Amino acid sequence: MNAPTPFAENIIPLLPQPYLVFLGDTTVPGYAKTAFGLRDWARDLCVGEYSCAPDAVSAGLPAMTPAEAKAAGARSLVIGVANPGGVIPESWIVALVEALDAGLNIVSGLHARLEDIPALRKAAARSGQRLIDVRVPPENISVATGRKRSGKRLLAVGTDCALGKKYATLAIAQAFKEREINTDFRATGQTGIMISGGGMPMDAVISDFEAGAAEMLSPDAADDHWDVIEGQGSLYHPAYAAVSLGLLHGSQPDVFVVCHQPGRTHILGLPDFPLPSIEEVIDLNITLGKLTNPAIRCGGIAFNTSDLSAEEAEALMARESKRLGLPVADPIRKGPAFEALITSCLGDT
Amino acid sequence: MNAPTPFAENIIPLLPQPYLVFLGDTTVPGYAKTAFGLRDWARDLCVGEYSCAPDAVSAGLPAMTPAEAKAAGARSLVIGVANPGGVIPESWIVALVEALDAGLNIVSGLHARLEDIPALRKAAARSGQRLIDVRVPPENISVATGRKRSGKRLLAVGTDCALGKKYATLAIAQAFKEREINTDFRATGQTGIMISGGGMPMDAVISDFEAGAAEMLSPDAADDHWDVIEGQGSLYHPAYAAVSLGLLHGSQPDVFVVCHQPGRTHILGLPDFPLPSIEEVIDLNITLGKLTNPAIRCGGIAFNTSDLSAEEAEALMARESKRLGLPVADPIRKGPAFEALITSCLGDT
Repeated sequence: MNAPTPFAENIIPLLPQPYLVFLGDTTVPGYAKTAFGLRDWARDLCVGEYSCAPDAVSAGLPAMTPAEAKAAGARSLVIGVANPGGVIPESWIVALVEALDAGLNIVSGLHARLEDIPALRKAAARSGQRLIDVRVPPENISVATGRKRSGKRLLAVGTDCALGKKYATLAIAQAFKEREINTDFRATGQTGIMISGGGMPMDAVISDFEAGAAEMLSPDAADDHWDVIEGQGSLYHPAYAAVSLGLLHGSQPDVFVVCHQPGRTHILGLPDFPLPSIEEVIDLNITLGKLTNPAIRCGGIAFNTSDLSAEEAEALMARESKRLGLPVADPIRKGPAFEALITSCLGDT
Repeated sequence: MNAPTPFAENIIPLLPQPYLVFLGDTTVPGYAKTAFGLRDWARDLCVGEYSCAPDAVSAGLPAMTPAEAKAAGARSLVIGVANPGGVIPESWIVALVEALDAGLNIVSGLHARLEDIPALRKAAARSGQRLIDVRVPPENISVATGRKRSGKRLLAVGTDCALGKKYATLAIAQAFKEREINTDFRATGQTGIMISGGGMPMDAVISDFEAGAAEMLSPDAADDHWDVIEGQGSLYHPAYAAVSLGLLHGSQPDVFVVCHQPGRTHILGLPDFPLPSIEEVIDLNITLGKLTNPAIRCGGIAFNTSDLSAEEAEALMARESKRLGLPVADPIRKGPAFEALITSCLGDT
């Protein structure tokens, strides 16, 4: 990834890189999404991985102790796993203290704050290292104004949470850059912030300032500049729709891309909430998004087809594209469908 | 007002009552809305008022020193004024310290935290009194589940912010109680919390937990019990819609009442944002609200007609009621239209 443009420093201070990726004692791959995201999108920023249990999941990076990682140039240990409660279990403390004592900062995107753990606070003070919680928003966020800003913006939205918005926007930002378009990826979640080195942890912002935080994340820019903004949640999620709406209003996107995972039938973890249709998600994002950008439009659909074979995925996406009258592509598989999605988003067609 | 039911203690700890209402040195009545709200809706909880300047506004309560108020049974001094920045000016400190030394707790709904002022912290420690910031949400808020809860709920929504949702819901809760319906007023803002002695400061909750906070505010209840929930913001407000949506989803209201101030043409302070029509507000609240309560319906419209004569108001409300096919009433003026609104909300018609 390119270095973030300077104003990102006003959002989250740039993180000390490169990283040693910590996998804790987690045995469930689903909990190691941050580690996998770092491996996939910031491989050159990861010197290795470290865990504190022999059967912990692996991100396939070279195994290293904190001291070895420090010697290899690492500046921070990044917590690459999350457990359901977002807490820091007792079983990790020895390993985290070891990292601090080895001269590494600790970067965490968990709900629990590093500063709240006395053993870490003490070790950080002793070693002169920093405890960095990327979920802690900056203190100077203003209430949103709704003022139209210069430059262009793309936002990922979803039929649900946790189905590929981050990967989709990282791939779209990369494709824009490959077309030599002046582009910034704007991270809105902890993994995205770790990957890009800056951003705004939208789900940790106080509700009154949610739209204002999104305005701050994508400031005025050159007319031909694109901010590609990572999405969060779904307007159809009974817990997280407030995050999605504040992000939509504050981002005032010119274009949005609907992210969807074929086969998902209900909101993740909530069997009583059926997944909305793609058409419903398009319509509702236009209805609500036009409050701050009357010209908002859908650029296409990003499918997460990781559960399907290449042939199945291609056939499904061709069928859905025809049905919806919009490009449908898997940003990870790339190919002509993805090129069509990029072209549609840019408005060249 | 009735005492809140015990579970309110899990939300905001019950405030020590009765109150001495503090007016500071404020000379602008518009800044004393909290004091006036307490006088109008919790008169029996206010033993008197106190100010620290001879020309300060009055809420018409008996003037008392903190010592006199303490002798009359007061347990807290409540800050009843807010200045534009939400700060606690230097000029109030002597009076607030005097109150603490007289044995009163201090209750504040300002943005600035009482704990951050060393003189107050010291005086509170010395006197054994508490500094209570009602804008600080509890720490144990969960992510929303969307689970349907027992009991019935009414939520105020709005064409804009600051047009009478608190007064409307207080009046509706009072009317429900007069009909001997088991009812709790559920406060979502600082003044409402002071009036009812508990609640949830929805605009101060972290976005990820916004809907969860609303779920916590109106827990399972008896089938014939009503929670009457104070509204916040508007789905059409470019800064605060996230608060309104989280509150709507988490409240899962059976009935909502649209609050509106006739004559308002644009969102308060944002001339580029025209006020939505009442019909738009009804439609959008149903569209979004049915996610967590498919049976959601509009019970009617509450007008704030404080700018109109009684005749003008009555004629306008009759006309609007006919046009919309729903009861339209001013909850402060009461009368037959308001009784029709109550009946419609209760679903007796």
